[in-house]
Amino acid sequence: MHSLTLGDVAHEHARTYTDETATVCYGARVTYHELDERVNRLASQLAAHGITSGDRVLWLGQNCHRVLELLLAAGRLGAMVCPVNWRQSAAEIAFVIDDLAPRVIVWQEEALGDVIREARGQAAHASALWLQHDGGGSDSYEALVAAGAPEAPRVDVDPASPVLIIYTAAFGGRPNGSLLTHTGLLTQDGNLFKLADMWPGFTYLNNGPLFHIGTFMYTVATFHIGGKNVFTRRADPVDVMRLIADEKCTAGFVLPPTIAKIVELNADRAYDLSSFRSPIRMEGWNDMVRQDTTPFGTRSMGGYGQTEVTGLDVYAAYGGRPGVTTAGRPSPWTRVTIVDEGGNEVPDGETGEIVFRGPMVHAGYWNRPEINAYRTRSGGWHTNDIGCREQDGVVAFIGPKTQMIKSGVENIYPAEVESCIERLAGVKEVAIIGVPDEKYVQSVKAIVVAADGAAVRAEDIIEHCRQQIASYKKPKSVEFIDALPRTPAGGKDYSVLDAKFGGGGYPGGSTRSNLRLQGASKWQMTTGTLSRTSS
Amino acid sequence: MHSLTLGDVAHEHARTYTDETATVCYGARVTYHELDERVNRLASQLAAHGITSGDRVLWLGQNCHRVLELLLAAGRLGAMVCPVNWRQSAAEIAFVIDDLAPRVIVWQEEALGDVIREARGQAAHASALWLQHDGGGSDSYEALVAAGAPEAPRVDVDPASPVLIIYTAAFGGRPNGSLLTHTGLLTQDGNLFKLADMWPGFTYLNNGPLFHIGTFMYTVATFHIGGKNVFTRRADPVDVMRLIADEKCTAGFVLPPTIAKIVELNADRAYDLSSFRSPIRMEGWNDMVRQDTTPFGTRSMGGYGQTEVTGLDVYAAYGGRPGVTTAGRPSPWTRVTIVDEGGNEVPDGETGEIVFRGPMVHAGYWNRPEINAYRTRSGGWHTNDIGCREQDGVVAFIGPKTQMIKSGVENIYPAEVESCIERLAGVKEVAIIGVPDEKYVQSVKAIVVAADGAAVRAEDIIEHCRQQIASYKKPKSVEFIDALPRTPAGGKDYSVLDAKFGGGGYPGGSTRSNLRLQGASKWQMTTGTLSRTSS
Repeated sequence: MHSLTLGDVAHEHARTYTDETATVCYGARVTYHELDERVNRLASQLAAHGITSGDRVLWLGQNCHRVLELLLAAGRLGAMVCPVNWRQSAAEIAFVIDDLAPRVIVWQEEALGDVIREARGQAAHASALWLQHDGGGSDSYEALVAAGAPEAPRVDVDPASPVLIIYTAAFGGRPNGSLLTHTGLLTQDGNLFKLADMWPGFTYLNNGPLFHIGTFMYTVATFHIGGKNVFTRRADPVDVMRLIADEKCTAGFVLPPTIAKIVELNADRAYDLSSFRSPIRMEGWNDMVRQDTTPFGTRSMGGYGQTEVTGLDVYAAYGGRPGVTTAGRPSPWTRVTIVDEGGNEVPDGETGEIVFRGPMVHAGYWNRPEINAYRTRSGGWHTNDIGCREQDGVVAFIGPKTQMIKSGVENIYPAEVESCIERLAGVKEVAIIGVPDEKYVQSVKAIVVAADGAAVRAEDIIEHCRQQIASYKKPKSVEFIDALPRTPAGGKDYSVLDAKFGGGGYPGGSTRSNLRLQGASKWQMTTGTLSRTSS
Repeated sequence: MHSLTLGDVAHEHARTYTDETATVCYGARVTYHELDERVNRLASQLAAHGITSGDRVLWLGQNCHRVLELLLAAGRLGAMVCPVNWRQSAAEIAFVIDDLAPRVIVWQEEALGDVIREARGQAAHASALWLQHDGGGSDSYEALVAAGAPEAPRVDVDPASPVLIIYTAAFGGRPNGSLLTHTGLLTQDGNLFKLADMWPGFTYLNNGPLFHIGTFMYTVATFHIGGKNVFTRRADPVDVMRLIADEKCTAGFVLPPTIAKIVELNADRAYDLSSFRSPIRMEGWNDMVRQDTTPFGTRSMGGYGQTEVTGLDVYAAYGGRPGVTTAGRPSPWTRVTIVDEGGNEVPDGETGEIVFRGPMVHAGYWNRPEINAYRTRSGGWHTNDIGCREQDGVVAFIGPKTQMIKSGVENIYPAEVESCIERLAGVKEVAIIGVPDEKYVQSVKAIVVAADGAAVRAEDIIEHCRQQIASYKKPKSVEFIDALPRTPAGGKDYSVLDAKFGGGGYPGGSTRSNLRLQGASKWQMTTGTLSRTSS
């Protein structure tokens, strides 16, 4: 009676928003009444194919309204859906197939058929039912829906159970599937409805990728508020213009390169874009889009979060720092602590690991019991990110945790020292490593890339740190390099730097080194645009 | 890790809103840091006095910041607080004392000392610890706080457990204590933050009674968003003006009679009321208060709910009817069905009982297992109210269910017929009863009070109904009366009418007759002002 799952919302909306449009996807237009029935049919067929509580369904396709339908249908059975990053290689997709061992895989021929066939050939897990979503044959998604019963099987689903799996890129090791729950998604909506000024009828252009929580949290919120989700596989400027104009889209992730094209192509105002609220100010664009509200409503959408806490959990809109997009106050449904290595809270103003508690924290990674145990070791979710709680309650994200350095009894987080040095004029970027030190366990070494033409000196860097941060955190030595080595995921490759510059002696030994590779993906929302930070 | 209770919010706010003001109450001004510590001290002392999960604490006093402190402290132990309606008689208060059998009673000497002593003398339950909140002796509330440990006992509290008890007036029978949960209150805030435009720093003037969910849901939401709760025991115009001006209050329930006084008293603009957002438009008032937003933000706050679903659960702001304050669409965290006597959903446009599901539904009434079983007989909360789901999804409240009438195979709800007749010019009010009918089980009789000087005729009333509602629902006979008899709670007294006009033969017999007395209290929010509807 007190339960609320995504399936409950679909049932409710069939009554409340009956004939209003739930999804638009190329030729397909589905009302809330039809959505609920399609989900029922799908759920009854998934159940007939053995899908039950805890099972996985894989989506190997681009953006499509069927992802939302699968989410709701799986959720109705206590199962989960994973929209895979289709930009990955066949080997990477095969890894996800084997990692999740899904009972059903829904795949797309157009644009992806070859890579998917290759991945299927490589995967060891061979027992899944494969359904093509963009075909009309007997093994197609639509054939399954057509064969289903209009009444859903009645399954008692725990709202705290996972329903959505999103893989997060690790720094170097294998990616992990974050298990997001009904309650987590429906709670995040309490923030989005308010901060993004969402009302029934809100129309969201799904042009960002659905394998990304930054898009998916808006897809779910738009569904939850009784709005319209418009899907497109491409962020092509003409597609975007046409969809905004035809569907009167309220919001979407339209970025400056696309905007520049649109300004050019729409000079004659052939497309009416006045329904659209864009946080980005560009000449020509400003007077094409809606002017009565600022970015996604009235406040800055900056903040900090990660996939593992269902997107942003610290929002600048609740009180942050002017111009800073990665600081803010926690969502009302979140608890934040900043802890030291022992899991104890550090005083305000000191750096430590950001730990979240509350209903938006995910249910852990799929099939990673050891990492899950480590990352929840204090009873909250350890983000692997370093942050700081300032005197006025603002939580600031500083950087990824990577490898902690030990100097005497003191803990030093490379991200903090890097952030300090990167503020110095003449420095382009920097990586901090620890090198063994007979007296102090380790000492701090900075590997610096100077800005083009800048003549920054080692002593300037050390003196800058002495003035800005605790003296024991300053580097003892500085090396210059032309460019930092990078991991495949784009992060700084500390292993290469350690090998090259004599790094080592880190506390905790090899276990810590492994965990260092499992960095969470971090997101920051810059004036309404969610973008992946460097790590 | 995924849990969120009121106590978690207090812990978080001690970090986030540390030095900001949480409560203002006469001389007392408490920051969020101090609030968390006071709550810890209080909880440790309540635990020392044996308070444990499921125990009750009674508040026998007027509005005070200590009610919020007690709520948080009890919640930290899994216990509950009940703010009693202090306007009741000694016998009524004694009934609540015996019904709840609280372990601790916090009471107020000022204005209430005599009636409380009388109630204490009448109550059978004599084992409670009595603490005076407005005194300084060794048995005072403040002495208890001072004696407490600054660290709270660590108790694992289920967010689905009740923390607040509010008694709802029954039509005639004994009142029932509705058990409101942590999750219910924190979920309702998802609506209020958005619809009432609440941000950190929102300042709420608690001048409405705290034994009423209409005030208390704002008290909790103001705390939850990191705002400031300002308490006053009286809605005296000078107090209200002074507090709005001194504390820069954002909102409160200030009604037309008080406004009229303020307009008069503040003609010289001695008090700056420009922080205050009032939904009420009155000459002189409009330009004293904030003009940049309409009622509590930007949309109408009308809707339908009851204490038992944590206040409003259907909001006009999500899409209602212009000018209608008791219709709207369900909150995104609510499910609504309209059911017949058998618990089956009725088609759109037909009347039936309004049933709620979701996290805002209360945990039942304290110590009323039979009523709870009956009111949850279909797996949702049966409101005892009649409503209708219209074609476009809008849920309209029609009236209290009271006693259903049976005519042939048809069910007739008096509220629907009354609502129809009361729209006829010349009719002041009406009560519908059923009288035994040999052929049709019962027939419908209308007991009508004509408007002053109006010469309305029985045949006009019957003809009006024939045109407006299904013919079988129209009265077969009409009686005129000077005034309707009333129950002590102010509802129409159908028992007296049955006795006087030959009513009887109701379906279900005596069981249903008893249940008819347990009517839920209904609330309607009229342009921002929550007021009790007639029942």
